[in-house]
Formats: sequence, C-alpha cells, structure tokens
Amino acid sequence: MLPMDTIQYLLPQNRIPLAWYNILPDLPKPLAPTLHPGTLQPIGPDDLAPLFPMSLIMQEVSTERDIEIPGEVRQIYAQWRPSPLVRARRLEKALDTPAHIYYKYEGVSPAGSHKLNTAVAQAYYNKKDGTKHLSTETGAGQWGSSLAMACAFFGLDCKVYMVRVSYDQKPYRRALMEAFGASVTASPSNQTESGRAILAEHPNSTGSLGIAISEAVEMAAKDPNTKYALGSVLNHVLLHQTVIGLETIEQMAMAGDEPDVIIACAGGGSNFAGLTMPYLGRKLKGQSHARLVAVEPAACPSLTKGRFTYDFGDTGHLTPLVKMHTLGSTFIPPGIHAGGLRYHGMAPLVSHVMDLGLAEATTVQQLDAFAAGIQFARSEGIMPAPEANHAIAHAIREALDAKEEGKHRTILFNLSGHGHFDMQSYIDYQAGKLQNYDYPAEEIAMALAGLPTVA
Amino acid sequence: MLPMDTIQYLLPQNRIPLAWYNILPDLPKPLAPTLHPGTLQPIGPDDLAPLFPMSLIMQEVSTERDIEIPGEVRQIYAQWRPSPLVRARRLEKALDTPAHIYYKYEGVSPAGSHKLNTAVAQAYYNKKDGTKHLSTETGAGQWGSSLAMACAFFGLDCKVYMVRVSYDQKPYRRALMEAFGASVTASPSNQTESGRAILAEHPNSTGSLGIAISEAVEMAAKDPNTKYALGSVLNHVLLHQTVIGLETIEQMAMAGDEPDVIIACAGGGSNFAGLTMPYLGRKLKGQSHARLVAVEPAACPSLTKGRFTYDFGDTGHLTPLVKMHTLGSTFIPPGIHAGGLRYHGMAPLVSHVMDLGLAEATTVQQLDAFAAGIQFARSEGIMPAPEANHAIAHAIREALDAKEEGKHRTILFNLSGHGHFDMQSYIDYQAGKLQNYDYPAEEIAMALAGLPTVA
Repeated sequence: MLPMDTIQYLLPQNRIPLAWYNILPDLPKPLAPTLHPGTLQPIGPDDLAPLFPMSLIMQEVSTERDIEIPGEVRQIYAQWRPSPLVRARRLEKALDTPAHIYYKYEGVSPAGSHKLNTAVAQAYYNKKDGTKHLSTETGAGQWGSSLAMACAFFGLDCKVYMVRVSYDQKPYRRALMEAFGASVTASPSNQTESGRAILAEHPNSTGSLGIAISEAVEMAAKDPNTKYALGSVLNHVLLHQTVIGLETIEQMAMAGDEPDVIIACAGGGSNFAGLTMPYLGRKLKGQSHARLVAVEPAACPSLTKGRFTYDFGDTGHLTPLVKMHTLGSTFIPPGIHAGGLRYHGMAPLVSHVMDLGLAEATTVQQLDAFAAGIQFARSEGIMPAPEANHAIAHAIREALDAKEEGKHRTILFNLSGHGHFDMQSYIDYQAGKLQNYDYPAEEIAMALAGLPTVA
Repeated sequence: MLPMDTIQYLLPQNRIPLAWYNILPDLPKPLAPTLHPGTLQPIGPDDLAPLFPMSLIMQEVSTERDIEIPGEVRQIYAQWRPSPLVRARRLEKALDTPAHIYYKYEGVSPAGSHKLNTAVAQAYYNKKDGTKHLSTETGAGQWGSSLAMACAFFGLDCKVYMVRVSYDQKPYRRALMEAFGASVTASPSNQTESGRAILAEHPNSTGSLGIAISEAVEMAAKDPNTKYALGSVLNHVLLHQTVIGLETIEQMAMAGDEPDVIIACAGGGSNFAGLTMPYLGRKLKGQSHARLVAVEPAACPSLTKGRFTYDFGDTGHLTPLVKMHTLGSTFIPPGIHAGGLRYHGMAPLVSHVMDLGLAEATTVQQLDAFAAGIQFARSEGIMPAPEANHAIAHAIREALDAKEEGKHRTILFNLSGHGHFDMQSYIDYQAGKLQNYDYPAEEIAMALAGLPTVA
C-alpha cells in the first residue's frame, strides 16, 4: 500500500476559533469615520439603532482585537466548520505547474457558501436583542439563502429583496429561500419608495445590490420590529468571516506550507477579508510574506477603477456615508452572472487596507472566469459559484506564471461557494451566450460625478 | 465557555477503509446465480465481457470478504471521504423526541451523492482495462453526473441516457454532466433499437431506468471500445458503497452510540446496501441488534409489493436474468420526482437479504417525503435529494414512535445526497402541484404476468 498524498486538511470541531479576529487595532491607521448623510458628522451607535441590534452595532465600532464567538453560534458552526482546506493536486497536474495550489472550501456550509458564517451570527444577535423580522437584499442569492436558513434556525421572519437579474436567472435560489420560509421579492419592487423611484425611471431595470439594499433598509427603517441585515461591506460582517482565515492558518501549518499569494474574489469584500485579514495581522507582525490579491469582475471594478472617497452604501441614498472605493452609488453594473460581485462599492475596511498598500487588486473578464470554473470542475469535481470563478481564474494565472518562471509558488485561494444554483449561467456559457464587458467608463464617470462632497 | 455538543463525527483521511466489504461469504445462503436469458443456464465471466471490464466482472462474482480498494481510488476518495456522520440535534429538538438521530452525509461528495463512490471505482477499473468510452443510464442524474465526473478525472468518454422525465425536470443536472464533458441524451431516444421500440408504442413515454438501461447496454454491446456502467443493482456496485457503512461503524463508536434502527431509501439498493451491509455483517456475528429498513416510494414498491423471482434488469430484455424483487421489467413507474427510485427491480443482494428475513422494507408517499424534506431542511439546513426524503420521512416516523413510547431509540439513516439540482420538485411541491400515487396494481399485475418462466 503506497502512502497517500494528503488532499484535505481537516481540523476537529474543537478547533473552531473561540474568537473572531478584528484587525482594526493592528492597522497602522484607523478607519475613516462613518458620516451622517445630513450633518456629515461622524455617526454614533444610536444613529444605527433603527437598523441594527445594539450588539452588532457595538461590534461594528469595536476596537478589541479578539471578539468571542458565542457558544450558540459555534454550536451551529460545528455542523460544517472547520471547513476543509484542500490541496488541488489534480488541478496542479492539469496545469503542469510547480506551484502548490490550496483552496479553503466554504461551499461545505449547508447554504453552500461562506455567507452562512455571518448569517448565523447576525440571526443570533438579532434574536438575542429582540428582533422579530429581518429584511435584507441578495444578489446571486448566496446571502439571501444563508440568512433565510439562519432565520429558520432562530425562528425569525425573513424578507429578501433579490436583485431582478438574479431573480430571473436563478429560480432555484429563490426556491431554496422559500423552502426555508423566507419571503422573496424581485428588486426593484413596487413595495418601497426606493424601488418605485427606480422603476419610474427604468421600468425594465435589472436591479443591483445598491437598489436592493435601499429597499431592505427602507423596510427596516419603517418598522420598529424589523431590523436590517447586510451580507457584506460592514465591519461586523467582515469580522464574522475571519473564522475562514483563522482556520486556514492552522491548516496551512498542518500542510507544512506558507502561502506566497492569497486570492479571493471581491464584491462587497467579505470573503476576501475573511480569508486575508488574519494573514494580514500576521504580515504586520512579520509572520507572513503573502501578497493579498482581491479579484473583481472587469464589469464592476470598484477597487481597480473606483475612487476612494465618501459615498452611500445604496443607490437610494438611505444609508450613512462611508469612505470606500466606489464606482458611484448610482452606477448599475452590467448583468454579469456573478451577481454577488455586482456592487458599486467595496467594504471600507478592504478599501482602507488597499489604500495603505497592504493588498492589491486585479480584474477578470466574465468569459475567462467561466473558462476557469469549467477547468476547475473537470479537475477537482466541484462546480464553483460564478463569483468564486474569479478567484480561480487568478489562481490559475499565478500557477502558470510560476510555471513560466520555473519557480515554486504556494497559492491559496478562497473557494467561497459552489455553483449548484448557478447552473443556468454555465448553460449559457457553454452555449456561447455570455459575453465580456468593456469597462463601463461613461456610466461610471457619470455616477462618480454625482458623489456627495465631503470636506 | 460551555462545552459544545458534538454535531459532526469526522475521521481523518487515513481512516478511509483499505478494503470494501463483501458480505457474500458471511451470508447463511449464497445468492441465486445469474442466468443467460437464452439458455437459462448460469452465466460465466465471459458472458459479461462485452459489457464490463474483467476486473469488475471478477468483483461481481467474488466471494472474498475484503476486497482491497486501489490506492488511486482511495486518493480520489480523499477529497471528501471519510464523509461526516452528523447528529441531527436541531431536528431532534424540533421533534421533541427522546430518540438520537444520526445521518451519514454522502452529499459532501463533489457530485453531491454516494454515487461517486462507485463511479470513481468503475472509471478506474475501466481505464486500467483499456476501455475508451463508457455508456450508462441515469434517473434523477445523481449517477450520471457522478460517472461524468469520474470519467473527466480518468480521461474517459462518457455517454449518458437520461430518463426523459428527469431530463425535462432537471436541466441543471444535465448541464452539470455536460460541464464535465459527457454527452447526454433523453431516453427513450431514437439512437437505439430499444429506444425506438418504446417510442413506436409510447411516443410520449416519460421513460424509466429500465428503458435507459436497455439503451446504454445496447450501445456498449455494439461497440468493442465501449463498456457499460451501472449505478446500482449489481454486486460490485453495492460493494463499492460499503465504504459508507464501514466508516459509519467507526463514527458511531466515536459517538458512543449503537444504532437500534438503520434506514436508507432503496431504488436499485446501492445506498441501502452501502450503509447496511457492514452492519449486517456485524449482526450476523451478534455484534449489532439494529433493524435494517429499506424505504421505497409507494409508487414503485418492488420490495414491499414485488415478486421475488427471475427477471430482466432492463425493459428491453437485453440483460441477463437475475433473481430479485421485481414489479415486472415492462412496468413503467409513475413520474415521481425521486427519479432514482423509479426502477422496477431491486438489487439481487438486497432482495436476497430481505428474503432471508435479515432486513425489512416500508413505503412512503410522495407528499410525505417532501414534507419530511422541508422539515429536515428547516432544522438542519441541508436540502435533501427527493430520494433521500424517503429515508428522512421514515426516520421521523421512528423518532415520533420513540416519543410516543417514551423510550430512547438510536436512529441512523443515510442522507445519500443533496437536492440542489432537484429544486424544481420543491417548487412544484410548495405550489401544491405534486400528488400521491396509489399502488399501480393493474399495471404491475400485467408486467408480472409477462415475466419469463424459470424452472
């Protein structure tokens, strides 16, 4: 019997992290404050109280390094966490590369992506603080189905505004949310002022995350029993995702390897931050040399082409102002199939880290992303989510670079979710119906011109 | 920090079984021989050579207890095996039962079900023995996508005949197979004599596994470079699935629990046999007291209503005759959504074990199966495959019985696959479009009347 090569690096249930890692106290510069859109003054916890339960608001502004994960949340995490770190040996072989390729596989969560990490935490804190209903937006549906599932676990009502283009492309995602008892509405809808305003101007709007956020925020602001939940962008959401990186650090040690480059796709920034912030913490202490690469779609390139400035988180301008890389909150990205990456902005934390030169960003075109996804599936068996295909495409680039240079490179990427509910996009891709998108320069210039002026 | 309840029982990669478990030498009576349909004499290995590679034929007739798993197969298994054993604590709580409920979760395989266990093995042996193309049938698509994936790993061409009703209900399954490079045809098709014969009589035929098997067998019989692969029924297929039960025995020991009842759905019998045969081996040695329960759909009840006799494995009567519980090889089951359970017969091994009184069988109606699946999903997060819903429905019955009796019971079932590609059936169920089926007594009586006479 020959010894087997290790494929999966698994940690036992008792290695689920005890605390999330908050990088803020370790950064060389603090985050720019969030501003009230009326006064342009920094907001305080009370300003956010209509939207979020106080325990999440306190996490949002916390500067403590280690934030304990409640036992009830860890108990639910235990169904699929620690998630596996996998060595992509068959992909390495197919690429004939000297590089080692590892992926952290978040698709093992029952919801199929990393989003459940924060959904469970948010549902838990909302339940604890007395919330009855949660309203939210979803793009591709990974976030909506995660929150719907977490709400089913905690007995909360869940209302999801689903971006129109995904609602039409992904009926099975909607069915999944409904199976968990959530109510799902295509956005823009007639149920909110924000939705009606968009429909009046663009009756055939394909929607966007920015619009759906406006609708969900509006619903929460109107009803004292309803709070709002966001699947990315905010500090507390990124915080909850740090379980990904914390586990990976242990697993890479099991593998006896150290990443040279760490890759994740970036829409709002949560799966990128979840994997990379714990590594960045080490890097700031000289314990890691890894380059951190955020990969965005060429059609919605907030980090690579956006402006680092104050903007609204939503299209309807109901949210506070945050300093971030933005394409302009009125920009509506082309209807690419990676719906989770169709967001005009980027998490303030990720934007800040990028501004400090601690991470880099790159773009991938839609057709290249799908080609990479198919190549990955044929080697590794897993059909990736279209969002994750962006990370895979860049991981393959890095592996081919290493081959060309004839040098070893250890590549780690976040396989943030599977694509089982995204098969229509693969059908369209294989039928030659998908396209690349040029950088939408004019639309973005127009949207950026409308940005609020902050001194 | 309170101690956490264990949810997942995980084994490390080096606990993947070294050998499959062949129960034949441990049974009190041997299996009835497989007969040549022309001579009605027992067939030998050479009779099967046009369809299968010799290493699989030798496994089919082997009476060795432990059959070594090749290193290459274990290496691929290592991507998802050992699969988790999960304690369904939230479901237990929702049912308010004193019972412990465990499920072995085979949906973690990249193909989403247990079928990959044998697909990898079959592709490996075919590759080793020089096969270039594999032809097969698939019902719901779990088997077809598993074989397509395994063929992609080993560089074999794959041709899949997909039962028409599933082909129409599950476009994403087809897309998955095509993404792995397989070619997929709706069955009955015009490509084969068997298909044309059915279409001549029933132009709108919804197809059945029996018909699709005829088509795939015919293609293999015609072409010396093509072999045939079956996803269930045969001894070697059930053998490959025993990794499920072998791992579970170790995991139940980790949990410090012993099952009182072990449950699996049964279409052809492979996931049932995979979980239960290793336990039956222990039972025959007095090391387990577990009842073994096969759960079939009320619409296709081969074990509970069929006759234990010689019949063909396919509708077109191209296969050898096997002794099994059968509803008659010309019986075409109603178009229930659990496509993997729409088979007229039952594995000879499972039929034999049932005939010896070593296992029991029960039925579940379609609407009860889906109700159980939704209840499971809201508690455990996982959307089960419609086939697996039958096992869940019976596990819930057992848990409620235990509650009524006020007694402890340890229930173990096989969650053989997830339902991510079956969401249309959940959409239809939630829209009230699905129905129960009465026992199709007349059609079955007619099919049974046509059985071949074997002395």
